[in-house]
Amino acid sequence: MKIHNYSAGPCILPQSVMQKAAEAVINYNNTGLSIIEMSHRSKEFVGVMDRSIALVKELLSVPEGYEVLFLQGGASSQFYMSALNFLPKDGKAAYINTGTWSAKAIKEAKLLGEIEEIASSKDKKFNYIPKDYIVPNDVNYLHYTTNNTIVGTQFKHVPETDVRLICDMSSDIMSQEVDISKYDLIYAGAQKNLGPAGATLVIVKCDALGKAGRTIPSILDYQLHVAKESMYNTPPCFSIFTCMLTMEWLKELGGVKEIEKRNKAKASLLYAEIDRNSLFEGTAAVEDRSIMNPTFILKNDELNADFLAKSIEAGINGIKGHRSVGGFRASMYNALEIESVQVLVDLMKEFERVYG
Amino acid sequence: MKIHNYSAGPCILPQSVMQKAAEAVINYNNTGLSIIEMSHRSKEFVGVMDRSIALVKELLSVPEGYEVLFLQGGASSQFYMSALNFLPKDGKAAYINTGTWSAKAIKEAKLLGEIEEIASSKDKKFNYIPKDYIVPNDVNYLHYTTNNTIVGTQFKHVPETDVRLICDMSSDIMSQEVDISKYDLIYAGAQKNLGPAGATLVIVKCDALGKAGRTIPSILDYQLHVAKESMYNTPPCFSIFTCMLTMEWLKELGGVKEIEKRNKAKASLLYAEIDRNSLFEGTAAVEDRSIMNPTFILKNDELNADFLAKSIEAGINGIKGHRSVGGFRASMYNALEIESVQVLVDLMKEFERVYG
Repeated sequence: MKIHNYSAGPCILPQSVMQKAAEAVINYNNTGLSIIEMSHRSKEFVGVMDRSIALVKELLSVPEGYEVLFLQGGASSQFYMSALNFLPKDGKAAYINTGTWSAKAIKEAKLLGEIEEIASSKDKKFNYIPKDYIVPNDVNYLHYTTNNTIVGTQFKHVPETDVRLICDMSSDIMSQEVDISKYDLIYAGAQKNLGPAGATLVIVKCDALGKAGRTIPSILDYQLHVAKESMYNTPPCFSIFTCMLTMEWLKELGGVKEIEKRNKAKASLLYAEIDRNSLFEGTAAVEDRSIMNPTFILKNDELNADFLAKSIEAGINGIKGHRSVGGFRASMYNALEIESVQVLVDLMKEFERVYG
Repeated sequence: MKIHNYSAGPCILPQSVMQKAAEAVINYNNTGLSIIEMSHRSKEFVGVMDRSIALVKELLSVPEGYEVLFLQGGASSQFYMSALNFLPKDGKAAYINTGTWSAKAIKEAKLLGEIEEIASSKDKKFNYIPKDYIVPNDVNYLHYTTNNTIVGTQFKHVPETDVRLICDMSSDIMSQEVDISKYDLIYAGAQKNLGPAGATLVIVKCDALGKAGRTIPSILDYQLHVAKESMYNTPPCFSIFTCMLTMEWLKELGGVKEIEKRNKAKASLLYAEIDRNSLFEGTAAVEDRSIMNPTFILKNDELNADFLAKSIEAGINGIKGHRSVGGFRASMYNALEIESVQVLVDLMKEFERVYG
C-alpha cells in the first residue's frame, strides 16, 4: 500500500532522492565506496559540499555578500548560537513570539542579554500571527519564526524594520520564494524540505558577523565556520549529500517558484475541504494559515479516534496533531504530491457522508 | 576492484551494515516509509533509539548510574560542552596534551576557567604518550584523549587519579574493552567505529552532573538531554540508526572482546612489517603505538608519491598521512578486515623488492 506521508519532520522526501541516497550508501558514484565511509576531505565529498552550497545559492537566489553553511544541531542549536553571535553583552534584541519554537529561541537568547518580546499571539494559543507591533530602533536585531509547525500559522510578509533580521525558516525554507537580502541570518533544520535530520542550513550576511564583541567558542562561531567552509569539524556527510539530492530534484522540477505554486495548490485543496466540510474546522486564523502545516479539528472530538483510524487504513501517516495541541495536522512539505492531499480530502468527504 | 578503505574517519563500516542501511533508506522494516522520512517520535524510531542505547550499554558493560546519549556536533562540540558542564566558574581542570584534538579541547575549556596542562608530548611532535605526570588533587576533573588519530599514539592505561575523569574516545571507542566505571564522562564522534558522521555518543555518570553551578544553554546541557532521552531536539536519525546496525554487527561477531583481539592482530601484522621492512619506519613511540591508526614514513621521502600511487593501484584508499604531519597513516577501524591489511603489507614487501 502506498503511504501518504504527512509527518511533521523528519518528513517525506522525493522517492527518487531516497533511491539515489540508497544507491550511494552502497557505492557512491562508482568509487567502490559508500557515501558514509568516505573521508569528508576526499575530493568526492568536498564536491558534494560545494555542490550543496551552490544549489542553495542558486535555488534561493542568495545575493553576493552572504555565506551558506551546513552545520549540525538543528534550529535548537541556532536559538543560542544566533544570539551569541549577534547580541553584544550590553545589547538588546526584539523577538516575535508565535509559539513553541520562537518561545524556545527567546528562552535561549535571554541567557545572553535583554530580550524584548515585542509581539505575541499567546493570548489566543498562538493561532494567529501578530500584526500590530513596532520594532524598536535601538535593538541589535529582530528574530522571528516564519512558519509555526505546531499551530499551523505562517508569516505572509517580512516584518518591516531597519534593524538586522534573524529568521528561523526551519519548516518553510525552499517552499516559497524569499528575498534573502532582507535578512542578516536565516537558519533551518534540514528535516523538512531539505533532507534528513542531522544537517542545519545557515545563510548569513558576512558583514553582520564579528560585531558582538564576545568570546565565542569555536563550534558556535559563524565566522570560523565560514572560514573553514563548513569543514571546521566533520560534517554530517550523509545528511548533506541527501540535501544535495533533494535540491537537485527541486531544481529539475522548476525550482522554488514552481514548488511554491504546487504548495499553494495543495494547501488550497485541503483548506477548501476543511472549510466546506461540516465536520471539520481549521484552527489557525484564516489569513495566517500555513501552506506547510494545515491544522484542523473535528467539531465533535469524540470522532477523533475513528478518523485517525480511518486515515491510517487509507495509508495516511502522521496527521495526529502535535501532542501539545491535539487535533490534526497535515504537514504538506515539498515532496508530498497533490494526489496524497486528494486522498485525505476524499477521506474527509467520506467521513462526512457517514457521520455528517 | 575491491577497495581497502583506510580512511581516518568517516571510515569503513561493515558491508552488511551498508546493505541494511541502504534497504532502510528505501523501506524501513516494511513500514513503507524510509528511515529518513519517519518522525523521530514514531514508535519505529523511538525503538531504534532505545535499541541503540541498549546496545551501547551491553557492548561496553556500562554500569548502573550512567546514561547513554546520542547528540550532534561531534567531539568538537564536546570540547566546550564538557567543560561547561563540569567546570565551575572558579574551578580548575587538568588536561593531558597529546596532539591536535586534546589541544582543541584545552583551547575551548580555557574559555571557561583555569586549565592546567599537566603533561604534554609537544616536545617531540606528540609522537609519544606522557607518562610521568601527577594529577593535582584540587582540580575538578582530568581530561585526556585516548587515541590520537593524527600522530598514531594511544593510551595503554587509564591515568591514575581520584578526580573526575573525562575522556575523548572518538577514535577508539568499541575497539577494545574499557572500564567505564573509571570515567565520569566519555564522548565520541560516531564516524570511526560506530557509524556515519553526524551522531555523537556520550556516556555520562549521572551523579557527576549539575555540580558546575553555571547557567547552561539547553542544547549544551547534559542533564536536559538525559531528561529528554536524547530527544530534546530532532536527533540525527539516520546516523543513529546506522550506529545501531554497526553495534548489532559487532555483537553478532562476539562483541568488544572479540574485536579487540582482531584489532590487535591487524595492528601486529602491520607494525611487524613496518619494523621489518628496510624502507619504512614507524613514527610513534613503540610502547604507545595506536592499534587504530598506525603511522609510518618512507625513510627516503622521494619515494612517497610512488608508494601512494601504487597503493591506489592496489585498491588501497586513504593512507596518505594527515596534512599536518605528512607520511602515511593506515587507519584500521573495526570493520577493516585483516585481508585488507595483508594487501598493504604485501605492497610494502613488493615495494622493498623493487626499491630496497
